[in-house]
Amino acid sequence: MKTLWTCATQSLAIGLAMTITPMTTYSDEGMWLFNDPPRQLLKTKYGFEPTDQWLEHVQKSSVRFNSGGSGSFVSPDGLILSNHHVGADSLQKFGDAQHNYYRDGFHARSRDEEKRCLDLELNVLMSIDDVTERVNAAVKPEMTAEQAFVARRAVMAEIEKESLERTGWRSDVVALYEGGLYHLYRYKKYTDVRLVFAPEQQIAFFGGDPDNFEYPRFDLDICLFRAYENGKPVRIEHYLRWSSAGVQDGELVFVPGNPGHTSRLLTMAELAYQRDQRFPYALAWLNRQEVTLLSYSARSEENARRAKELLFGVQNSRKARLGMLEGLLDPRIMDRKLDSEKKLRQAVAAETRWQNAAQAWDQIAAAQQIVAQNARTYNLIEAGHGFHSTLFDIARTLLRAVEERSKPNGERLREYRDSNRESLELQLFSEEPLYDDFEIVKLADSLTWLTEQLGYDQPVVQKVLNGKSPAARAAALVLPTKLKDVAVRRTLYRGAAELAAAHDPMLELARQVDADARAVRKILETQDEAKRQAYARIAQARFALEKTGSYPDATFTLRLAFGTVKGYEENGKIVPFQTTIAGLYQRSSEHQNQRPFDLPPRWIERQDSLNQGTPFNFVSTADIIGGNSGSPVINRQAEFVGIIFDGNIQSLVLDFVYTDLQARAVAVNSQAIIEALRQVYAAGEIADELAGKR
Amino acid sequence: MKTLWTCATQSLAIGLAMTITPMTTYSDEGMWLFNDPPRQLLKTKYGFEPTDQWLEHVQKSSVRFNSGGSGSFVSPDGLILSNHHVGADSLQKFGDAQHNYYRDGFHARSRDEEKRCLDLELNVLMSIDDVTERVNAAVKPEMTAEQAFVARRAVMAEIEKESLERTGWRSDVVALYEGGLYHLYRYKKYTDVRLVFAPEQQIAFFGGDPDNFEYPRFDLDICLFRAYENGKPVRIEHYLRWSSAGVQDGELVFVPGNPGHTSRLLTMAELAYQRDQRFPYALAWLNRQEVTLLSYSARSEENARRAKELLFGVQNSRKARLGMLEGLLDPRIMDRKLDSEKKLRQAVAAETRWQNAAQAWDQIAAAQQIVAQNARTYNLIEAGHGFHSTLFDIARTLLRAVEERSKPNGERLREYRDSNRESLELQLFSEEPLYDDFEIVKLADSLTWLTEQLGYDQPVVQKVLNGKSPAARAAALVLPTKLKDVAVRRTLYRGAAELAAAHDPMLELARQVDADARAVRKILETQDEAKRQAYARIAQARFALEKTGSYPDATFTLRLAFGTVKGYEENGKIVPFQTTIAGLYQRSSEHQNQRPFDLPPRWIERQDSLNQGTPFNFVSTADIIGGNSGSPVINRQAEFVGIIFDGNIQSLVLDFVYTDLQARAVAVNSQAIIEALRQVYAAGEIADELAGKR
Repeated sequence: MKTLWTCATQSLAIGLAMTITPMTTYSDEGMWLFNDPPRQLLKTKYGFEPTDQWLEHVQKSSVRFNSGGSGSFVSPDGLILSNHHVGADSLQKFGDAQHNYYRDGFHARSRDEEKRCLDLELNVLMSIDDVTERVNAAVKPEMTAEQAFVARRAVMAEIEKESLERTGWRSDVVALYEGGLYHLYRYKKYTDVRLVFAPEQQIAFFGGDPDNFEYPRFDLDICLFRAYENGKPVRIEHYLRWSSAGVQDGELVFVPGNPGHTSRLLTMAELAYQRDQRFPYALAWLNRQEVTLLSYSARSEENARRAKELLFGVQNSRKARLGMLEGLLDPRIMDRKLDSEKKLRQAVAAETRWQNAAQAWDQIAAAQQIVAQNARTYNLIEAGHGFHSTLFDIARTLLRAVEERSKPNGERLREYRDSNRESLELQLFSEEPLYDDFEIVKLADSLTWLTEQLGYDQPVVQKVLNGKSPAARAAALVLPTKLKDVAVRRTLYRGAAELAAAHDPMLELARQVDADARAVRKILETQDEAKRQAYARIAQARFALEKTGSYPDATFTLRLAFGTVKGYEENGKIVPFQTTIAGLYQRSSEHQNQRPFDLPPRWIERQDSLNQGTPFNFVSTADIIGGNSGSPVINRQAEFVGIIFDGNIQSLVLDFVYTDLQARAVAVNSQAIIEALRQVYAAGEIADELAGKR
Repeated sequence: MKTLWTCATQSLAIGLAMTITPMTTYSDEGMWLFNDPPRQLLKTKYGFEPTDQWLEHVQKSSVRFNSGGSGSFVSPDGLILSNHHVGADSLQKFGDAQHNYYRDGFHARSRDEEKRCLDLELNVLMSIDDVTERVNAAVKPEMTAEQAFVARRAVMAEIEKESLERTGWRSDVVALYEGGLYHLYRYKKYTDVRLVFAPEQQIAFFGGDPDNFEYPRFDLDICLFRAYENGKPVRIEHYLRWSSAGVQDGELVFVPGNPGHTSRLLTMAELAYQRDQRFPYALAWLNRQEVTLLSYSARSEENARRAKELLFGVQNSRKARLGMLEGLLDPRIMDRKLDSEKKLRQAVAAETRWQNAAQAWDQIAAAQQIVAQNARTYNLIEAGHGFHSTLFDIARTLLRAVEERSKPNGERLREYRDSNRESLELQLFSEEPLYDDFEIVKLADSLTWLTEQLGYDQPVVQKVLNGKSPAARAAALVLPTKLKDVAVRRTLYRGAAELAAAHDPMLELARQVDADARAVRKILETQDEAKRQAYARIAQARFALEKTGSYPDATFTLRLAFGTVKGYEENGKIVPFQTTIAGLYQRSSEHQNQRPFDLPPRWIERQDSLNQGTPFNFVSTADIIGGNSGSPVINRQAEFVGIIFDGNIQSLVLDFVYTDLQARAVAVNSQAIIEALRQVYAAGEIADELAGKR
């Protein structure tokens, strides 16, 4: 349930407008802003009033994983808990033919053994400032959508740069409520992050793809890191105290974390586009990658190791999208959305002061049509589906970094603005191992995909293939490129002269398609801006009409969700709120301990040492989505009682609409973590640190 | 490398015109007709002159598997040898939760234990008659393409019915050289076919998907059946004697068999369509099925058993199509095709008497455009990709069988003509076990696919979904349908009154989409006819211009290929012509005996008993394609020296063009079969029967 960066990139392609949420929140709905929490709702429904201190403590105990996920500080010595599948990227990059940490797990028995991650960046949200006025002042009413986009980008970059220079903190301007608000988020950044502990993927992802997005579950989906500064573990003020009591049925819990993306107020026209074009395209691309990766993996164990994390991400995305598409194709859900849109349009149409807003639906549909016409090309040429190779990504980043650097900060493509420079370099100069054969397989397959999607005779396809078959072309690009060498990348990064002198085939390819890629990106960004303005008008009308507290759509920034720990009914049966360790052994034995229901040897050997009644996984009604993976689940006392790692299949519609009928967030119980660390992994020192015993 | 029926069906969708082959054959090219063998070529190149007796003997020793493959008689008691993957369909249908014959193999230790296949039909070609004149006489020059199609179908049905009534033999009129010739093929039919022996799928398909279409190989891809009549094994005159000597490097060999389909003389316009539309669509559909089936299979061992054969077929097709697409995208191959088309068009344009032919290319392109516009709908609605469920196939067959029966024989859809009735009923009343959950998974996924491909708002999609999500609709169709019961099918088959009284949801669905399905089928059949006529004009011009012996494109009818046993060069290395049993153990051990390179327990236990030097698999330059699976490889004395089971990856372009540079047919050596039967399977009685020792 992780928000992969690839997905985040993809979202631009399909013109995802961030929209305001329904004003009439009910039940446990909401991904709330930390500077605008649902105080009234919590007081009314649960009699709970969070203090400012409570909120600040929870905010600063929360950690964002820039590889796509969430986590939290769980000890004063900078220990951070997240999911195994959030740590997967780091675990994968450590591996080689002799070590498969992703599969086999890792345990640093002392601080010395803690292993520094190659390119992991963590962010802790330190402050939020409203900069809406300054941003809006830069955008004049007479501007075209394109001019407005440029002006907005410029003022946002300016604010970010000023803030970075003044505070030294990572500074991002975040558009909320589709431009109804602009907030400046400042983060403390950790780039020396070390791996402390990971269990075997077998137990972290017990049940594999079949059980992914399902419940009941029996997964120990955890991974422990430690933040360092100046070569030493950081001493921090805000971290979550451990609850040894776990959770009770019916208890109120909170989930601070970074939901990646929701689209709860897309117009019906946009939803129809997603249903008829976006998801079909995405599924075809994911299915293809899954088949290619499985096929590559089947050739040898080493291949399987190289592809494992990417394969997991692809399978995870595929299953999520299938579930979301099933929601979009379910009249019981979509009729409700249609009905609510109709009512709002009627209310807006009834008052002349909302005339502007009344036109917004058609404006969105018009912009959406242009997006639809260009999305495929965007996905292939700009989002990189046509050049699926880490080496290509490096080539493009080098090329653009140098080119964009010569422009004023505010005029650059967003990822090359000064405030993002350090994060960009961390990725670009990563020592992540790259494998020629794997790069060729991915690239050849995606060049074929590009050809299939655009047609062989398209000029850009002919340019890319350069008179060769996809397989031959991929080999001719990957084998000779020097970009595998990080030192070469550092040299090329210096400037245009170095780049020009390189004569590297991968750089040449990136250069050849860059004009096309930038052109299509500009089209989509312009239409996104047009939609943003139209959505903002709808939002204003809605604000005025409904006047209740609200939260914006998810933006992979810190939010606070809350909910009740409780089970649900499915096919006439009650699914209890929690599972136990005994259930794990039972499920494995029902499947004759066969993959993906096989237990790691240590779990088989230590079965008798484990307290079988220990609660393992549990569900709650908290409003979460991809990106929340690794989020702590906390109680009223802000104590750690569990860690989110998934949502059930019924929760996938949360992208479009909240429901607590069956949708549930799935978490690992804090008690199971301690039990496993002590009894299975002989990691008493970590358990002690978590429990505050050292 | 099996021609699945689903693929055969698909071929209509993309308007595959059967075309004549290049007149200037060279090297070992050719899928020759038994009544027009390459006598001159064989004499010149190999000094071999097959007698009429030789040809008749080989023809009548050859067996066509109507489930999609080839085989041969190998004993006077009706023993038939084919591939494990050709027998897969029968093996799969025998299985249940307790028995997995497909995976574990089968061995009847006595005649009593031979197990009757549920719906397998075998054909032995008895005679070939030229009926071109009679067919052509029925088609008048002034007819439109649609009228010509109807007239042709009528006269063909008439000829077949007459022949069936007179001889009792299955009678099919086959269009060769794209209507340059029409031949009446008469078959002796066997429907009481019993399974005698199958090895484990592990060894039949050693190396799995990674090694599929690759070489060197180490597969015992065999399966033995026996034909029965009146409850007793048939005594036959023509069967292949066994060679205990196997093959030598450089030896001339023959391959009689039923190649399914080639398209060697498609115009460049048609090839471009295949490259840009047909293959991309087919791959997306296959990728999707593969992911769905793998996902279903991972849930339990029983699921895996239920899906295994379908999954194999899908993976096999996917890999084949990827290879073919790679060929279509390879300028080294396509430039040659383009060049040859240019030369022919110039030659034709140069003479006024070929004016008609000169226009043919444009006529084909025009017809092809209409095909392209309708292919997707055809595939989804008529070829059944939108209703991927055996129960739906049964419903449609029942509905149409009754409806078509009321029409004159010659006006019916081709599969419902009288001469095919017995074969149709064998399938329709098959006791093949069907599983609700599996049917629902396939149907739900394909309903989603239908929706994605045509768009949710399309009337036909709305009609099919009937106000439900795909998953809910699939369950509402599969759970209540009575068609699972063969007795019910027999009742409904009686007539329209029975059908009308049934009120079965699956029948209702078939009925609802039938008008749309028939309409799009008619469009494609009409365009196919238009293309057929245009291709025939090109063929006539080419005949006149080149005047050399030739063979028609493959039509899943009996052909004779020939070739040399020899290795080839790949990446600068020589790939030897044969492998040995020792190589099998070596390859398995290189992969730590891990799937799909694991050996069956019996092969591990009996390793020391096996003569490690026994030749295992070998390659030759024979011109084969899907459908040839199971074809015997014979020597000049018409002795059985091996059995075809695959082509290497370089052979996949044989669909479009013959080459012996690297393309090779892959076979199991006769010696390995005997060695395995005796030493691994303790099946001495079968080995004796093969060797003629009893």
